[in-house]
Amino acid sequence: MNNFTYYTPTKVVFGKKAEEQVGALVKEQGCKKVLVHYGGSSAKKSGLLDRVTASLEAEGISYVMLGGVVPNPRLALVRKGIELCRQEGVDFLLAVGGGSVIDSSKAIGYGTANEGEVWDFYEKIRKPAACLPVGAVLTIAAAGSEMSHSCVITNDEEKNWKKKGCSSDLGRCRFAVMNPELTMTLPEYQTQSGCVDIMMHTMERYFNRVENMELTDGISENLLRTVMKNARILMDDPENYDARAEVMWAGSLSHNGLTGCGTDGGDWACHQLEHELGATYDVTHGAGLAAVWGTWARYVWREKPDRFLKFARNVMQVQEMESDEKTILAGIEAMEAFYRSIHMPVNLRELGISGLTEEEIQDLAYRCSYQETRTIGCIKKLGRKEIADIYRLAQ
Amino acid sequence: MNNFTYYTPTKVVFGKKAEEQVGALVKEQGCKKVLVHYGGSSAKKSGLLDRVTASLEAEGISYVMLGGVVPNPRLALVRKGIELCRQEGVDFLLAVGGGSVIDSSKAIGYGTANEGEVWDFYEKIRKPAACLPVGAVLTIAAAGSEMSHSCVITNDEEKNWKKKGCSSDLGRCRFAVMNPELTMTLPEYQTQSGCVDIMMHTMERYFNRVENMELTDGISENLLRTVMKNARILMDDPENYDARAEVMWAGSLSHNGLTGCGTDGGDWACHQLEHELGATYDVTHGAGLAAVWGTWARYVWREKPDRFLKFARNVMQVQEMESDEKTILAGIEAMEAFYRSIHMPVNLRELGISGLTEEEIQDLAYRCSYQETRTIGCIKKLGRKEIADIYRLAQ
Repeated sequence: MNNFTYYTPTKVVFGKKAEEQVGALVKEQGCKKVLVHYGGSSAKKSGLLDRVTASLEAEGISYVMLGGVVPNPRLALVRKGIELCRQEGVDFLLAVGGGSVIDSSKAIGYGTANEGEVWDFYEKIRKPAACLPVGAVLTIAAAGSEMSHSCVITNDEEKNWKKKGCSSDLGRCRFAVMNPELTMTLPEYQTQSGCVDIMMHTMERYFNRVENMELTDGISENLLRTVMKNARILMDDPENYDARAEVMWAGSLSHNGLTGCGTDGGDWACHQLEHELGATYDVTHGAGLAAVWGTWARYVWREKPDRFLKFARNVMQVQEMESDEKTILAGIEAMEAFYRSIHMPVNLRELGISGLTEEEIQDLAYRCSYQETRTIGCIKKLGRKEIADIYRLAQ
Repeated sequence: MNNFTYYTPTKVVFGKKAEEQVGALVKEQGCKKVLVHYGGSSAKKSGLLDRVTASLEAEGISYVMLGGVVPNPRLALVRKGIELCRQEGVDFLLAVGGGSVIDSSKAIGYGTANEGEVWDFYEKIRKPAACLPVGAVLTIAAAGSEMSHSCVITNDEEKNWKKKGCSSDLGRCRFAVMNPELTMTLPEYQTQSGCVDIMMHTMERYFNRVENMELTDGISENLLRTVMKNARILMDDPENYDARAEVMWAGSLSHNGLTGCGTDGGDWACHQLEHELGATYDVTHGAGLAAVWGTWARYVWREKPDRFLKFARNVMQVQEMESDEKTILAGIEAMEAFYRSIHMPVNLRELGISGLTEEEIQDLAYRCSYQETRTIGCIKKLGRKEIADIYRLAQ
């Protein structure tokens, strides 16, 4: 087992009507002027924003509003948020939405609490020294940003958009309010993309080169089986409270560090492959992950067959075949079959990206390898050539 | 799934040489004067105290020392600690030891940060409004106090000693330093009592009346299987690092709230039954829990057979028998067989308490029921009569 640090200070308030506690939670933080940050019109229409602001008002907390966050949240809006926070003397950022809204809030938090160019933190030129406190009212179970230390922003200010992350404990949410009922009205595609995203946060950590961490492996395997079971339930019964609750809680546990304890950190190649697709084609994150995972798995499994064997047995619970190779490949196929069963893509064409030219593939790979300055993944280190192979094979 | 709050702000630094980070961790908290609180001579002899104080000195942090904490930590020493903290202007409590030392530190923290009688918090007359910050260097995997909000103190100032708990998020450790190597020299009895304590923290939550929380159940079942496997390994190979690490991490996860998410809080009758034994006979906590569990289980299972059936199947993995009743009883027996295999008692006689008179049993039950003012347990509510039954049957 590797040494590790586990730090999850976020106070989770989980269950029905949890959003009514928002005002009290902000007050507990000693904050007085809130930026309520949100996405589109659904939070307004559903009455959620009204309930949240009523809860703030009941505690005598004043607020300003900033909507308009889109999936793959944009740097331009982050700048607008920073300006607003400075103008208004905001001392708390309340994200009402999913991972995009939370990430946009964290970025605003970094930008407001530190001088200088906020994008520096995403280009890794500087590290943030502080962050305005952030809290979340979660409406999508997917990104896990409500308990994670990560934050991914898309820079839409240059010709080639860039999707980059900044990870820091400073940005961890002070609290996360999670009412599974709030996710019941999501369209199937978003619900299921979320399920894939949740699973991939655990799988990226599960596929690593350390063997001896039974507790973490067991938690991960159980989490993956639980999400699969409940994702299937939600296909037929999207208003099933318990299924929504299992998926929502799994989303937080999947990305708060728990499923990585004792590992070497994990592979994360699929996330990097998807980030480039997200920046270039603006695809839904979870769907993008599903579209590349199977190809990645077949490309790399020979480098760590025991891990893929354990995955086939304990997660996919496939029948033992006449050779380990066949069992491993059956495990990968079983996961793809699961993705198909929840209407998720298992290749780029199904994701909506067809007819890539070799030049486009090479461009994607060049950018994904940061102009050939890095490799991605730990099961197999992937440079520009290997990245291009995977994009090509994933078509 | 029930609504829940999950709050585990403790920063865990886990692994080899973790104790060398103590100075930096205290500094991160902005504290300057530490009370190093510990138990007997082993922390001194092993050189651990020297390494810890060297780490504090390296960061320019001054400290005073207070040793002498015993299992079932005493109120008298807590009072001494409070006095010392006030005299010396201590602003941080560093517990170097196991659950007893951490609980004694938390109690000192409550007593120093609040005016008035500290025992009030344990008699539930008042709630603490503050606590000095506490950190832990863990040397025994058992109590889970390093991540829990609980703290149990034995009042040794009256004729009948009382063992009572105070639970508050204010007392949660700021950090927990966990190096599994520090637990390698523990005697077998302490190691295995620790394993029982860890398992019981999960089992007390697992046995509850809510059914639909798959993620929590799966985490709990895996945790229990993992601890049993590694407890057995430690019987033959007490210096097995990975086994020590699995048990140590399980100890924290077992009592930080994770295995209770979505439940009704759990049963906890066995803990209350043991508290009375601990206060009266000063037995080792984990061993005391093992000694009453089987009797408790046979006494209550008919009130919630589905839960005991799930336990038999998923935790003890017993063969399906011709009736549910037989499978359930086989599950209970399998757990007792496990306790025996790690040299833990499964009745009071094996715990070292023999020949209780009916009057002694009635006295224990009277005190355990708080003079007949409460029931314990949720699977079956146990009043004075039922508590006496269990003590009698557990002989």
